[in-house]
Amino acid sequence: MQELKDRIVKEGKVLPGNIIKVDGFLNHRVDTVLLDHIAEEFGRHFNMDDVTVILTAEASGIALAAVTAQHFHKPMIFAKKAKSDNIEGGLYQSDIFSYTYKKKVTLLVSKEWLTSDDRVLIVDDFMANGEAMRGLCDIVEKAGAQLAGIGCAVEKGFQGGGDRLRAAGVNLRSLAIIDSAEPGKIVFRETT
Amino acid sequence: MQELKDRIVKEGKVLPGNIIKVDGFLNHRVDTVLLDHIAEEFGRHFNMDDVTVILTAEASGIALAAVTAQHFHKPMIFAKKAKSDNIEGGLYQSDIFSYTYKKKVTLLVSKEWLTSDDRVLIVDDFMANGEAMRGLCDIVEKAGAQLAGIGCAVEKGFQGGGDRLRAAGVNLRSLAIIDSAEPGKIVFRETT
Repeated sequence: MQELKDRIVKEGKVLPGNIIKVDGFLNHRVDTVLLDHIAEEFGRHFNMDDVTVILTAEASGIALAAVTAQHFHKPMIFAKKAKSDNIEGGLYQSDIFSYTYKKKVTLLVSKEWLTSDDRVLIVDDFMANGEAMRGLCDIVEKAGAQLAGIGCAVEKGFQGGGDRLRAAGVNLRSLAIIDSAEPGKIVFRETT
Repeated sequence: MQELKDRIVKEGKVLPGNIIKVDGFLNHRVDTVLLDHIAEEFGRHFNMDDVTVILTAEASGIALAAVTAQHFHKPMIFAKKAKSDNIEGGLYQSDIFSYTYKKKVTLLVSKEWLTSDDRVLIVDDFMANGEAMRGLCDIVEKAGAQLAGIGCAVEKGFQGGGDRLRAAGVNLRSLAIIDSAEPGKIVFRETT
């Protein structure tokens, strides 16, 4: 998606440790007009008529997932990352390793809200090692629901998470795959 | 807002400890069509032409804030709740007490994304003690920005957070104020 790649080149920042920051339009201060364009682009790749629910993980994926869900008039579920006192029993859960926080976190979705009748599109803003995506796929499977696919805005291709999911047969579509990043030089993977 | 009150009565659950759960359409599985109607309602109460940015706190407020921001073509900023390694220095921060997690958390907004030129509408899905709102107001003040108002979907009126903000002169609009809640009986405050 050229508009997204242009924004990454223009406004993204590459920090030591292969950290690519797109905080100014995607992760912290969110450009909701761009999010709506991303949602439209997902609509070209996935059969949204067949999708019953959009699933993401808190926190930064929620904005894109909500705008995508609203665009196609779908409900949106977000997996919570810590057990709060307000969640009753009856949870699907999956343990993942958060590279951002350098610790194990548990993704939780209430069994009330995801069922075996659902056809799920997972949406996230960013994928690196793909741990959050793996955990969300795990939850979809535990619910007996069908995975329609994964729509991701920015994938750090060189960290391999996306390729592992593709190799496992997942219908993953990332709108910008970054194959290498150095300050001043971001190389995108050519995709069809 | 009658549509919202009807949903709370129909689908909300009252748990011991005055906990009102609206997980099925607002906090976990999110009805994005309802969120868009809530956004429209905010548009009747606030002069959106004058607002430059929508501000919320992660995590559950993000969906409503994103849909509201998208509805009015505004950017949306969400305050983060923990210092991750991906946030550089230069942060506005405010300490609040989270009654959900029963501990102090720090709200963080990068100074890059909120400036003294901004006129901020704070949006959140839920207000009880108003700690998150207080922290967000504090961040707006630290940024030297102007607070246009606070739009809240569901306010637990009996916990006093909203009334404290109103007494302080904040232009707060909650679309459903719950004055008391027992299983089977939810009483809303009459508002004009």
